[in-house]
Amino acid sequence: MVLYSKLSSEQLHAKFEEIKQLYDEFKDKGLDLNMARGKPSPAQLDMSMDIFDSVNALNGYSAEDGTDCRNYGNLTGLEECKTIFAQALGVQNDNIIVCGNSSLNIMFDYISQCMTHGTGNGNKPWMLQGNIKFACPVPGYDRHFSILEYFGIEMINIPMLETGPDIDVLEEVVMDPSVKGMFCVPKYSNPQGYTFSDETVKRIAALKPAANDFRIIWDNAYFVHDIYEDGDTLLNIFPEAAKRGTEDMIIEVASTSKVSFPGAGVAVVSASENNVRMFKQRMNAQIIGHDKINQLRHARVLKDANGLREYMKRHAVILKPKFDIVLQTLERDLGECGIATWTKPKGGYFVSLDVMEGCAKRVVELCRRAGVVLTNAGATYPYGKDPKDTNIRIAPSFPSLDELRQAMVILCLAVKLAALEKLIDEE
Amino acid sequence: MVLYSKLSSEQLHAKFEEIKQLYDEFKDKGLDLNMARGKPSPAQLDMSMDIFDSVNALNGYSAEDGTDCRNYGNLTGLEECKTIFAQALGVQNDNIIVCGNSSLNIMFDYISQCMTHGTGNGNKPWMLQGNIKFACPVPGYDRHFSILEYFGIEMINIPMLETGPDIDVLEEVVMDPSVKGMFCVPKYSNPQGYTFSDETVKRIAALKPAANDFRIIWDNAYFVHDIYEDGDTLLNIFPEAAKRGTEDMIIEVASTSKVSFPGAGVAVVSASENNVRMFKQRMNAQIIGHDKINQLRHARVLKDANGLREYMKRHAVILKPKFDIVLQTLERDLGECGIATWTKPKGGYFVSLDVMEGCAKRVVELCRRAGVVLTNAGATYPYGKDPKDTNIRIAPSFPSLDELRQAMVILCLAVKLAALEKLIDEE
Repeated sequence: MVLYSKLSSEQLHAKFEEIKQLYDEFKDKGLDLNMARGKPSPAQLDMSMDIFDSVNALNGYSAEDGTDCRNYGNLTGLEECKTIFAQALGVQNDNIIVCGNSSLNIMFDYISQCMTHGTGNGNKPWMLQGNIKFACPVPGYDRHFSILEYFGIEMINIPMLETGPDIDVLEEVVMDPSVKGMFCVPKYSNPQGYTFSDETVKRIAALKPAANDFRIIWDNAYFVHDIYEDGDTLLNIFPEAAKRGTEDMIIEVASTSKVSFPGAGVAVVSASENNVRMFKQRMNAQIIGHDKINQLRHARVLKDANGLREYMKRHAVILKPKFDIVLQTLERDLGECGIATWTKPKGGYFVSLDVMEGCAKRVVELCRRAGVVLTNAGATYPYGKDPKDTNIRIAPSFPSLDELRQAMVILCLAVKLAALEKLIDEE
Repeated sequence: MVLYSKLSSEQLHAKFEEIKQLYDEFKDKGLDLNMARGKPSPAQLDMSMDIFDSVNALNGYSAEDGTDCRNYGNLTGLEECKTIFAQALGVQNDNIIVCGNSSLNIMFDYISQCMTHGTGNGNKPWMLQGNIKFACPVPGYDRHFSILEYFGIEMINIPMLETGPDIDVLEEVVMDPSVKGMFCVPKYSNPQGYTFSDETVKRIAALKPAANDFRIIWDNAYFVHDIYEDGDTLLNIFPEAAKRGTEDMIIEVASTSKVSFPGAGVAVVSASENNVRMFKQRMNAQIIGHDKINQLRHARVLKDANGLREYMKRHAVILKPKFDIVLQTLERDLGECGIATWTKPKGGYFVSLDVMEGCAKRVVELCRRAGVVLTNAGATYPYGKDPKDTNIRIAPSFPSLDELRQAMVILCLAVKLAALEKLIDEE
């Protein structure tokens, strides 16, 4: 192997023919492989089946405080369910509200709340403040961008570094009073798998935005989702924020979507006393209570933060070989070509791959034609626009090991083919 | 018994002493009875325990179309779950979106949607239209009023008749272009148990509001909740609206909160093609999907609209003796006094009691002191203000038969005592 940039014109064309032939062989196989979304595999879901039987006629339906979880009542969630998250996130039970099945829904609803009611400290609703903006670490999570786009909130790209969002840039961007917040995934970021450094967390907690209704949506989606034993540690932002009096700036969410069942798990918000008060006030009008039975199912099986972490080790056993395949194939097939870089996360659900400039869309298209579905190129940027067209998100969790092996070989061929097309085109 | 209004001063005082003594005897018992909220009783919840075991390792987790309900996917709900509601509500599956556990949450979220995005036919978001108003049939459901109050929407009282909201008044009120909608419970209304007459339904479908972003939230909470065999029939509003081109004006919701489990059931919205499209667009940003496992549990046990109706007959067996106690006690103890009137519903969860003007608060207070908790007086009116202070909502479902018998005796004593206090005071 050699760096593609060092190849002569003749070598480029020869290499192109070679790779094209290999690619075409796969294309003719009519494969149907999917690395598009961070979905747990059936084997992971099978692990959690005991959750379904933990609440029924045989095992009972009463919470520890005697609540009949089948009936109305209890606005903020069962204490035993709060405890699991409070322990794992390093906060108090009173800072936790257990909601429905979706942390995305909590985030959407929080933005909606800010639009119509503001942030609760005397500021006007965002809806009545004209054009407002959010800082968006990029590449980032497409569904965060979708929420902002739905509410017509302008998005400003902030580059992601290995240590988290580029804080120097962020500190400058928040000096604009129309910048009202930021979504981020602080641990095992989507798509890179980066974990914010202690310094980044501290400087985020110390932000002094011009807008005093600035809010950070701390989407801790992968809070216990280590894959390798030397997993990352995220500094708890709340004590850092408390030191600086910025607790109200942080809205943290987490869920069991990738612990138990996507769609049939429980999601929580963790927030300051002031924010919890505002959530409760809203919830009094919004809902009589979330699904306590499902909270109880989870509490009975997961028990506490230690139980949760033990549970996650079983997921890691299933996920590690998949991440190994992704990282080893990338290294083997692309390691010496100089046409791509990628992240090497210790947890989470994604690997972020950067291909040659202007090639990401082409790679995704080539994969699609060979039967491998990837997340759309551009999806990791606001408005679906990757300015350099380089980023591709790899989601290894759902396919089987065999499928993943094939899909990764095809992906690497596509990366090469797109690069060769570009290099030949530029001759 | 005689009409209290015909009693001489001496008779009034004698009667007062008699009733006061009876009341005080109960007061000393230290009872703890609750007729405040429409909660199913444990016996009703016990009926539905099979729902919990219908999805697990033994019984499987696949929907009819093969969907693994444990994983992500499916935005608008399982077809087999849609079918149950579509059949029961007389609409097509495509008009149904199955959501989470709470129809209240659907309604809250719909108002929120109108506030930030309008109704989707080119009108401005409600939030940007200045002061807006809703027509509110009164007495009505306190949680509807709470939603409107939360969003700062002004409420206009519309008198409820036995046939539904006073349509002559409503037709006039909607000529104000700032009136944007109405919440209502068209079948077994909360608190009266009235069902809108065919004529009312037709005239609602034929409304010509000045605002073309006027919306009716058709909260069909008790759509299959008959208690007596000769239950009411509600005319299906959608065909009536279709004839007049007003389908987009109607947003219907329903749930299994009082079929299976409050808080652990499923809720749906039924709406026109245009509105479904708008809901889907919002949901694409809002949530990856609702809890399909819980939808599957319900679909497997309820099966179809017939299964649903059979299920409700079992609830009726439990509820009928309770409504009998309420209605028979009211008739026996208050029937000849001329100091109260009440409704005689054939289904739903409530009986509406009107006491002498200016006495409702006092009755609720007297009951509370004797250990009987009722819904707050005034709660059935916007802003908690019952202009004549007459209405009390009775919720007979939760207490046991024995508890209910005692509670109703105390309530009737309190109604008499408050009336006598007033009559003596006015001498």
